[in-house]
Formats: sequence, C-alpha cells, structure tokens
Amino acid sequence: MALIVHKYGGTSMGSTERIKNVAKRVAKWHDAGHQIVVVPSAMSGETNRLLGLAKEISEQPDPRELDMLASTGEQASVALLAMALQAIGKQAVSYAGWQVPIKTDSSYTKARIRSIDDAKVRRDLDAGKVVIITGFQGVNDDGDITTLGRGGSDTSAVAVAAALKAAECLIYTDVDGVYTTDPRVVSEARRLKTVTFEEMLEMASLGSKVLQIRSVEFAGNYKMPTRVLSSLTDPLMPLEEESVSGTLISFEEDTKMEQATITGIAFNRDETKITVLGVPDRPGIAYQILGAVADANIEVDMIIQNQSVDGKTDFTFTVPRGEYTKAMDVLNDKVKANIGAASITGDAKVSKVSVVGVGMRSHVGIASQMFRTLSEEGINIQMISTSEIKISVLIDEKYMELAVRALHKAFGLENA
Amino acid sequence: MALIVHKYGGTSMGSTERIKNVAKRVAKWHDAGHQIVVVPSAMSGETNRLLGLAKEISEQPDPRELDMLASTGEQASVALLAMALQAIGKQAVSYAGWQVPIKTDSSYTKARIRSIDDAKVRRDLDAGKVVIITGFQGVNDDGDITTLGRGGSDTSAVAVAAALKAAECLIYTDVDGVYTTDPRVVSEARRLKTVTFEEMLEMASLGSKVLQIRSVEFAGNYKMPTRVLSSLTDPLMPLEEESVSGTLISFEEDTKMEQATITGIAFNRDETKITVLGVPDRPGIAYQILGAVADANIEVDMIIQNQSVDGKTDFTFTVPRGEYTKAMDVLNDKVKANIGAASITGDAKVSKVSVVGVGMRSHVGIASQMFRTLSEEGINIQMISTSEIKISVLIDEKYMELAVRALHKAFGLENA
Repeated sequence: MALIVHKYGGTSMGSTERIKNVAKRVAKWHDAGHQIVVVPSAMSGETNRLLGLAKEISEQPDPRELDMLASTGEQASVALLAMALQAIGKQAVSYAGWQVPIKTDSSYTKARIRSIDDAKVRRDLDAGKVVIITGFQGVNDDGDITTLGRGGSDTSAVAVAAALKAAECLIYTDVDGVYTTDPRVVSEARRLKTVTFEEMLEMASLGSKVLQIRSVEFAGNYKMPTRVLSSLTDPLMPLEEESVSGTLISFEEDTKMEQATITGIAFNRDETKITVLGVPDRPGIAYQILGAVADANIEVDMIIQNQSVDGKTDFTFTVPRGEYTKAMDVLNDKVKANIGAASITGDAKVSKVSVVGVGMRSHVGIASQMFRTLSEEGINIQMISTSEIKISVLIDEKYMELAVRALHKAFGLENA
Repeated sequence: MALIVHKYGGTSMGSTERIKNVAKRVAKWHDAGHQIVVVPSAMSGETNRLLGLAKEISEQPDPRELDMLASTGEQASVALLAMALQAIGKQAVSYAGWQVPIKTDSSYTKARIRSIDDAKVRRDLDAGKVVIITGFQGVNDDGDITTLGRGGSDTSAVAVAAALKAAECLIYTDVDGVYTTDPRVVSEARRLKTVTFEEMLEMASLGSKVLQIRSVEFAGNYKMPTRVLSSLTDPLMPLEEESVSGTLISFEEDTKMEQATITGIAFNRDETKITVLGVPDRPGIAYQILGAVADANIEVDMIIQNQSVDGKTDFTFTVPRGEYTKAMDVLNDKVKANIGAASITGDAKVSKVSVVGVGMRSHVGIASQMFRTLSEEGINIQMISTSEIKISVLIDEKYMELAVRALHKAFGLENA
C-alpha cells in the first residue's frame, strides 16, 4: 500500500508488444494495492529519428525548436501506455510535462527541474487511476517546452518520485542491476543488492552507465530510494520476487559499513593523457592551462601537478579520447608560448581503473593493496587520483582488462 | 503589407526537402513585407502511423489518449518548419495549440474551437517573426489536448486567420484550385478563379473534396477570404503570380452574379438508394424510419416522400455505399414491422450529379435545361433534390460520367 514510481526505458517501450508487457507489469503492482505513477521514455529509436529530421533541415537547429520536436516522442509513449492499461481494464491517464506541470528553467535541451505540482497527480491516484507522465521534459515560465537532455527520463522519474514522496522509484532497464564490475570483462562479476548513493555516483561517472548521473544526484538530494531492475523478466513474476530484484541505491550507510570494504571496480577505456612539461611554477599557471581547455568546452578529468624542481614543474591531466586532438591544438596554439612551457606531450592510449566503496573510509590500506596487486601483474601506474570513496589509476590501455580482473579478485568481489 | 495565414497539407510537409521548400515560399511572402502565420499539417503518413500504433494496442482506444497521441505529429511539423525558416535566416517560432492557446470544447477527436488568444502571436509578428501554429489541435478547459478530427488543420488555419483578422488565408494543397468539375471526368474542366462560400459548401459536400467542409463553414461565418492553391509550384515563383493563383472563396456575390449562372458540376459516385414501400401515411412516420437509421450512425443525404395514395406512401432516401447493408438490416430488423411497411427495396448502384451556382438564384430555367440535357442523353432521373444554389439528381451509376460531361457542355463551363 505504497506510492511507487516506475520508469521504463526506450527499449522496454520499443514496440506495441513491449508496451503491453509494461502495462501488465504496472497492473500487477496496482493490483497489489499500490498507487503507481509511470514515467516512460520515447519508443527506442524515436528520439534519434526526430533529431535526424532536424539535422537534415539545419546544421545547428534552434534549441527551443529542438525541444518542441524531441518532446513529441515521450508524448506518444505515454498515450500508448495509457491505452494499453485501459485495454486490460485499468483506469489510466497520461500527462505531458507541461500538463502536470513540471516546471524547469529555460536551458533548452538541458533544462533543470525547478518544481513539480502534485495536485493533479494525487487527485488521479486517489481516484484509483494509474498516472503516466512524460519523462525527459517540462515547461518553462514562458510556457515553452523544455527537455532535460539525453537520459533525462531517469531524472524525471526520480524527481516525480521525490515530489510525491514516493516510497520507492523503480528504474526498469535492460540490465538487471549494478555489478561489481562489467561482466563482459570479469565473468565472476556479481550483482550488488545495494549500493550507496555516493558509490553509484562514482560508478556512473566512471563508466558503469546504468543510470543517468543527474538522476543519481537527484535521488541523493531527496534521499529517494531508487532501484535499478530489469524489464526483460516475465511481467507477471511474483511481486515479492520482483520487489527485491535489481540493485537498490540506498541511503542507509550503517548496514553497508559492515559489508565489504570495496563495492566495485569501475573503468573507462576512453582516456588520453596530456603533459605540459617545464612550466614555470608560479601562481595562476594551472588556470592559464586549464582555463584555455575549458573555454574550448573540453572536459578534464584527472589533474596532477608535480613537485617543482628549480622553479619548473610538469602539469598532467586527462581528457576523453574524442577531445584529444582539439586539446593538443588549444595548448600548442594558445597556451604554450604564453606560459613559457618547454614542451607538450601526450598519450592517446591510456585507460582509467578505479576501486570504489564507502567502506574504504574506515579501512586503511586499500590504496596499498590496489598498488601491490597492479605491481604483481607488472602494470605501471601513470597517474593516481583519490577521493574519500574511490582510488583511480591511469594505466596503459592494453593492461586495462587485466587490471580490472586482478583487482576484482584481490578485493574478493566474486564472493557474495 | 498584410497579415496572411498559410496552411500546408501533409503532402507539402512530406519530407525535409519539402519542408525546406515550404520555408522558401513562406520567406518569399515575408520578404515582401507581409506578416505570416503558418499552420502546417503533420508530415504525410505520420498521423496514420500513430493511429496504427494505437490500433495495435487497443480495439477502441480512449479518445483523450488518442488526441494526446495524434497531436504529436503536428507538433513535430511546426518545430521542423521553424528550424527550416531559421536555417534561411528568418526569425521563426512554433506553438502547439495549447500554447497559443486555441481553446476547444472537450469532444476529443472531433473538438470544436471556442476561442483563440492572439496576444502571443501578435507580439511575435510585431517583432518580425514568422509564427507557426500546429493545425488540427487545441486544448480544453481541463488542460487536455484535443483534436479537431481529420482534415482539422484546414479549420485551424481559417480559425486562426479569423481570430487575427488576417487579410487572406491561403490553403496550399496538392491541387491547384477548384474546378468546374473533376478534370479526370471532363478534360475541358476549367479552374475557377473565384467561387462563393455557399457554392464551395455545395461543391465540398458533393464530392469535390478540396477543403474540409468545417473550414469552409468557418470561412463563411467569419467572412474570411480563403484561397486554395498548389504547393507543387516553384516556391520562388513571382509573388504577383502566386497571389492570384488557385481559387479564391469569396464573399462578394455582386461581381459573381454577372458571371455564368452555373459554377460547376459536382458528383458523388458512392450513393445507394433505399425505398420503404407501402408506409401508412401518418404523422411521425418519417421520424420512425430515419430516427432508427440515425441512431445507427448512418448519414442520410437525399430524402423524398411520395404523394400519398389510399393512405399509403413510399419513402425513399440515400445513404453512402459503405452503410448500405447496415441500413437495410436496421430497417428490416427494427423498423419494417413497427410501422407496418409493405416492403423495403434498395439499389446499391446509383450516383448523384449536381449543378451548383449562386447565379441560378436569379435565372429561371436551370432545372429544365438540366433535365432536358439528361433526357437527350437517355438518362433516367430517379430522384431530384434542390436548394437555392444547386439541383441534384440521382441516376444509374453507369451514366454518371456521361451526365457530368453533357451537363458541363450544356452549361458552357468549358469557356472562361
């Protein structure tokens, strides 16, 4: 007897047959006495089809008009799902973001949610209806449609759940949860029953792309229990079984602390490393280097600066592989001469491997165990970066899988 | 320097290339100093695709959800057209019906427009923007999306033009105007430069399906000069030429009266005739027969009742061919015994031919010339129905083309 929000991704909504399965699953939860709000994505392929049309018309389409266009995919989805529920005897009603309304700022194509009015939704839930709300979109103060950007439906679902003070937000997707690492790299990888919000943030940003990172932030801010689970199971599987499947992003660290120190091994194959050598070690130098890179809209991840020797230092940072050439050009053209650097070198074939876990806060020696494991495999560490709940190293890309497998085993992640 | 509304049908919006051509045409009008509002349909095929998805999900989809679904087609169109205009340097902004807002009643899938707020549109026009508004749809008092039914974009365009007191509403379509009759039947058929609102109503309802009939009614109620013209011409053709092309539905009868008495020959191949024989001639009998037919949602067109003989009469009416079997079943099952009719007969192979023209109001002898022409061709007239500006006859379908050609010639319609 709880209020629960379901979110279904584009694959789950990919055909009318699949939409009927979603309806069966929702009806099962409703039959059990729960109040259900559903936030579906557009049918898979639809958003790309629409953006493809825009691209045929204009190289740089106006963001306001792009949002007007792209939001139609989710609007069609909610109507189809309402019909599918009605066809199996459920009362259901669909709303576009502007109808709720879900108010956002005016940053078209990447808007941020400001407020959600729950009056209509509560009225319908109290009347016994399933309420279906478009993901990915809202409306600004001018009455223009806005979208939240790619993967925004996850954020919509968590935000709606928070606004309604739902008991849980269930994110149905095509994977069955969050794993200790990618099962394609380590076959012993194990599904996590729970993961903390902070770990999930580190796992998501490090490449375990199960949930859009903004939705995890939202879940964290509102302490909304959010479960990632599979929509590919039998829609009529017993509710007791389904309601504990997948991975729960939890906010109760206490239970967690007694478990393993390390939660998972994340990795990102797609890194490059750039080093500015022989930089005069004076105040403002980091800004002069990274400011120019940021101005070119290049995302920088790890950053280290060496101890200065004779008034000179080296400055190293990583950027995604797609931005490598652009970053090198910026440095050579705009930065090198200005700051009087000796030279600029780079390596486009590096990868990042991270161990993540809130448990490491209270356990010493995680870093040394990580470095020993890599050393025993003969893997050289090029850069190190640490936070409270993760340690990341940059290594030659050819050792990435080996490093992930070795660390997964060294920290005992294959055992439940 | 006038405010002009353009409406483009689904074929004109059928691909991104065609949308670019629409943008060129609109820009040409805007360049000439006019304020332009555009009402485009969904891309051709899109509405059918969406309704097909609905049908896969439910035999009888909820009308509210159908409107939520179907309205997305036009929303995508307006955004794409705005992008196409921006890509060639025009300022443009798109609005869905609910954003204007275009207020309607709550008759989902066949809503009627109640009011149109012109504030936003005027503000944008005054700022030099082309304003693009979704056809086919509006919003009711509950904030639900409604649609006006098939062909509703014509009605939207005329209604928007009326609300803005536009100088003219241009309906761009895949024909280049209204003809004296169907050129596929009579090769000498001639395009009409003007046609009155009442003639257009008769032409439309009689089968010259160029414009949705509700849009013609709207044009009539608001005396909105409306021009039907082709979108298949060169989008950059000289404005002076384009602005007098097609057919203007006018409201100035005086100029018209001096022209030909007959404007055109309309026809409908798709008729059937049903006769209830030996009906007791007492009050209420027509209602007992037609009420049952209307209750079954069957549209009745021509109706005649013969002079009563010995207290008995015959009652004849026409229904569309697709409804013939249903109508016969209703009469045999529910009506015949109740009213004590002798028998019910029908003919499923008849057609209707009509001469139409406001000129006939002031000219006698139109009917006799029509009947003489048909008689000279040996065509038997089965039913006759007249109004102030048209005379319709029902004939054997095999003579339909012959009748249309003979009448077109007899009334001299091939000469300008």
